[in-house]
Amino acid sequence: MKRLIFSVIIILATLNAFSADIKLERVEPMFWWAGMKSPSLQLMVYGENISSADVSLEYPGVELVSASKVQNPNYLFVDLKLAEDVLPGKFDIQFKKDGKLVEEYNYELKARKNGSAEREGFNNSDVIYLITPDRFVNGNPNNDQVEGMKEKPNRKDRNGRHGGDLRGIINSLDYLQNLGFTAVWLNPVLENNMTQVSYHGYSITDFYRVDARYGSNEEYVELNRELDKRGMKLIMDMIFNHCGSEHWWMEDLPMADWLNNYPDYKITTHRRTVNQDPHVSEADRDAMTKGWFVPTMPDLNQKNPFVPTYLIQNSIWWVEYAGLEGIRQDTWPYPDKDMMAVWTERVLEEYPNFNIVGEEWSLNPAIVSYWQKGKINTDGYHCSLPCLMDFPLQDAVSRSLSEDEGWETGLVKLYEALANDFLYADPENLVVFPDNHDMSRMYKQLGEDKDLLKMALAYFLTIRGIPQIYYGTEVLMTHEGDEDGDIRAEFPGGWADHKVNAFTGEGLSADQKDMQRYLANIQNWRKNKAVIHYGKLMHFVPEDGVYTFFRYDEDETVMVVLNKNIEDKTLSTKRFEEITKGFSSGKDIISSTEIPDLSEIQVPAKSAMIIELK
Amino acid sequence: MKRLIFSVIIILATLNAFSADIKLERVEPMFWWAGMKSPSLQLMVYGENISSADVSLEYPGVELVSASKVQNPNYLFVDLKLAEDVLPGKFDIQFKKDGKLVEEYNYELKARKNGSAEREGFNNSDVIYLITPDRFVNGNPNNDQVEGMKEKPNRKDRNGRHGGDLRGIINSLDYLQNLGFTAVWLNPVLENNMTQVSYHGYSITDFYRVDARYGSNEEYVELNRELDKRGMKLIMDMIFNHCGSEHWWMEDLPMADWLNNYPDYKITTHRRTVNQDPHVSEADRDAMTKGWFVPTMPDLNQKNPFVPTYLIQNSIWWVEYAGLEGIRQDTWPYPDKDMMAVWTERVLEEYPNFNIVGEEWSLNPAIVSYWQKGKINTDGYHCSLPCLMDFPLQDAVSRSLSEDEGWETGLVKLYEALANDFLYADPENLVVFPDNHDMSRMYKQLGEDKDLLKMALAYFLTIRGIPQIYYGTEVLMTHEGDEDGDIRAEFPGGWADHKVNAFTGEGLSADQKDMQRYLANIQNWRKNKAVIHYGKLMHFVPEDGVYTFFRYDEDETVMVVLNKNIEDKTLSTKRFEEITKGFSSGKDIISSTEIPDLSEIQVPAKSAMIIELK
Repeated sequence: MKRLIFSVIIILATLNAFSADIKLERVEPMFWWAGMKSPSLQLMVYGENISSADVSLEYPGVELVSASKVQNPNYLFVDLKLAEDVLPGKFDIQFKKDGKLVEEYNYELKARKNGSAEREGFNNSDVIYLITPDRFVNGNPNNDQVEGMKEKPNRKDRNGRHGGDLRGIINSLDYLQNLGFTAVWLNPVLENNMTQVSYHGYSITDFYRVDARYGSNEEYVELNRELDKRGMKLIMDMIFNHCGSEHWWMEDLPMADWLNNYPDYKITTHRRTVNQDPHVSEADRDAMTKGWFVPTMPDLNQKNPFVPTYLIQNSIWWVEYAGLEGIRQDTWPYPDKDMMAVWTERVLEEYPNFNIVGEEWSLNPAIVSYWQKGKINTDGYHCSLPCLMDFPLQDAVSRSLSEDEGWETGLVKLYEALANDFLYADPENLVVFPDNHDMSRMYKQLGEDKDLLKMALAYFLTIRGIPQIYYGTEVLMTHEGDEDGDIRAEFPGGWADHKVNAFTGEGLSADQKDMQRYLANIQNWRKNKAVIHYGKLMHFVPEDGVYTFFRYDEDETVMVVLNKNIEDKTLSTKRFEEITKGFSSGKDIISSTEIPDLSEIQVPAKSAMIIELK
Repeated sequence: MKRLIFSVIIILATLNAFSADIKLERVEPMFWWAGMKSPSLQLMVYGENISSADVSLEYPGVELVSASKVQNPNYLFVDLKLAEDVLPGKFDIQFKKDGKLVEEYNYELKARKNGSAEREGFNNSDVIYLITPDRFVNGNPNNDQVEGMKEKPNRKDRNGRHGGDLRGIINSLDYLQNLGFTAVWLNPVLENNMTQVSYHGYSITDFYRVDARYGSNEEYVELNRELDKRGMKLIMDMIFNHCGSEHWWMEDLPMADWLNNYPDYKITTHRRTVNQDPHVSEADRDAMTKGWFVPTMPDLNQKNPFVPTYLIQNSIWWVEYAGLEGIRQDTWPYPDKDMMAVWTERVLEEYPNFNIVGEEWSLNPAIVSYWQKGKINTDGYHCSLPCLMDFPLQDAVSRSLSEDEGWETGLVKLYEALANDFLYADPENLVVFPDNHDMSRMYKQLGEDKDLLKMALAYFLTIRGIPQIYYGTEVLMTHEGDEDGDIRAEFPGGWADHKVNAFTGEGLSADQKDMQRYLANIQNWRKNKAVIHYGKLMHFVPEDGVYTFFRYDEDETVMVVLNKNIEDKTLSTKRFEEITKGFSSGKDIISSTEIPDLSEIQVPAKSAMIIELK
């Protein structure tokens, strides 16, 4: 890497021999912290002809290692080395031409918060609430339309901006807390200054700024402060694979290979198995990893050494700045896999107890498990990604509850899906979810059958892993169309003109209220149930449309029964003897019913029971 | 294990205090060899009250370690220790009562053949022909009905015995050699003295004797001698999970726990994932591994230490006796998995270059790969099984050629199936096959479309792995019914009254003859193609119904193209540049056509090309 940088410097030094106006427009990261584990910091400095300036600074414990010129004279990459004992404080970075100061940037090394490095990431004690910010609550109608933002609000358009924002989320935290959620994951909130369909957030146009229509960086910090007060956690959605096509640097790229397939645009093949396939061709690998996700999302070239540094620092900056407890990394298999491995190592080096969940949307657990920390792969690849989205389990739940029971169909699919856990180095550290912003809601997948949805939710909230629920599930949100914009509809009560209000209960149907109570009951019970968080799991082959599993530890045993039949079932527990021995009665926490005799249990039709054994 | 044996001895010694007639009926193994790697040999001695006799022997280098009495006084397990330098020869094992000789067995330690330990097992240079012996060729009509054999021949019954035998196979070896086959795997030929449906061979009633209706042990040895003459290999089908319910010991079991679930019969659940599932209950594990495969197949208890010893010695005996080049082990996931690991280690200890293929009939490559030697499993389980049947690939071929092309359907399934090779420690050592005796023939699976079958065969004969073809594929054997007995029909020309004869060509249709030529052409070409045996594999994402892959090594590159379209296709090879560079022309070995310009290839509709690049 060093060698490449210096070659570039030598080649380009001659190009900038002529004198010209020098202007400083950006320094990123805008500030940093003293006392990080890594001593390295690379500033991306941007401005007209900035590379023709000489850089200098003076601050005890800060060494200017190099200032690298690249293809575009408007960029300079300044490498600093921070001493372990460098003190927080400010210093000027000076840009001079012929000995004359032409620009100056007052750089700050902030003091880290106590315990920042040791922060605990989201974990199995949590239940995550996933929010699409534009569609949740419009807490501040004044920022729906913001000067300089290309796309204007249009609530009539399912792909338009509706005005939801951080203020709306902050205002809803008591509601979420009462429902028993302990963490929130927001779809990306960074600036998406795109001309259209910008509401989803996955076309970032500034990696260091919250979109003004959601609020500000400061409000994002405020959100986490409010979450912290409630013992809740914040998970940030990040995207390393691409930026938005309206990103500020698209008009003036640092170098030709900052992006892949640029200016010749090529879309990715989406054949994601190229990452694992031992027989893959380079052509197919490149076509997948270097192709653009969609035409509005230029593909970042993580093989260019400046790109990974930029992205890695950006992520650490947000963790430190906003006090994040987790990252959800988008489109995991699309960026360069070696870079992703390095990124996970770097983040965990700074925050050893942190958690990151990657989105490998594959129904093949062999593919998903390939990425997890601790997995020994035949090709020698190792990644330190602690956690993955459990797409295979999502699919298994949906199918197993939808289809008829048979030798290979129905609940046995759920049983067999879990049997695949032997593939994971850490099957506990998976985010389990009924649905998310990219697929039909589980309620819809289950034919809008509330009873089946309840079974699915009871399952996700008691099975191994970290449950995540999409906003609105608690009020049976559904959708006629299956387009993204239909699925990500406005949350009832999030806008002043809504007639139905999930917060106040106004206009909610009995079923909706019932579902709110159902979730709140299980989730609040779950909060302090170590046996659900970290207990072992034992399950039994489904029989007669009934699937039974147990969570157990030294202190407690919980039995979960799913009865898919349309009639009540009498469940004889003799089969489960090895785990039920020593217990004679129980209590179903869903119905709050005592079960005086454990040997035979009456399980109501199409329902789940969560039984604390006694 | 030792401790258990001695406890049993102490408990049972008292039971046999009374005197009674002593008779010797069996000693197994009947003989053994000097110079095996393992010094241990355990003889199962059977006969009335044999356990009340005192055992003695005298032979230099043979130590009588112990004679273990078990529950049934008619058994004695005699442990011998053979010195490394023990010489071949014979000695008497004497059985005395009150100092008086009552029975005697002349035991032989035979000399091993030169190179016996170093024998090479079947490998990637081979193409295996799978034969159901009862249905292939009736070479000796005199043994169709044999005195003492319970089931009589009945060719009118699809589940009856038809009379095929070893003589018939021996007579057919030139035919098979000309077709380009280099190995044969016979469905089990050991005695199946069952009252009905005994023709398939999977209900063994004597582990040391070839079924008299197939011939004799000597004829089995003769078969392999004839194979050896032709440079061909013999693979024996073994079953460790169960025996037949008419096995000789069923009337007089050595001990109560020689079998599982006996006398209370329970069928297995067939939920085979219990072997991998980290959340499995003991109840489910036992229900699967200790249940009987079918009511006529008692489940051997491999946890009883005498059982594994019996089975392991039996398999080594057959390898040494018949000069086997391979074992196909039936129903791999059903017996005790720890025992199976020990077995593979023991066999490979004696024959380090040997090959064994296990039948794990799962479409999940994660499950199949779990068993393979070198695989690092998260649960720490390790097995030395070198090779597995590639059921996932069989399924992928069938589906990919049958279904319409789409984003996730058609040829891409074949591409994605191979991408899963990252799961295997050794993806080369898999037996690949279009079908076998337990499923519809591939020809049937493909709607009796000869062109699609040809594509499938070209694929299996050029992809990584060791191809196996079921008898009759070369003459388009098919079946109306889908019962086992329909699939395993008589081979045309195998019986004197057949009007169609695959050997002479008499009565064969043009299509049948064409298929014989097609296979013979590819298979004979394959024989000396190291690049197909051990070359690397590179494949490309299918496009427009065309799938292309390459086999390559330092000396050669072969391009295989599958065109599934119903019209000819012009294939531009620019995409494949990374592997085709340096080559400008080629020759399709299927059509024997020169391809003067490699840059664009005309691929005929629904066909495969196998192109040697030049």
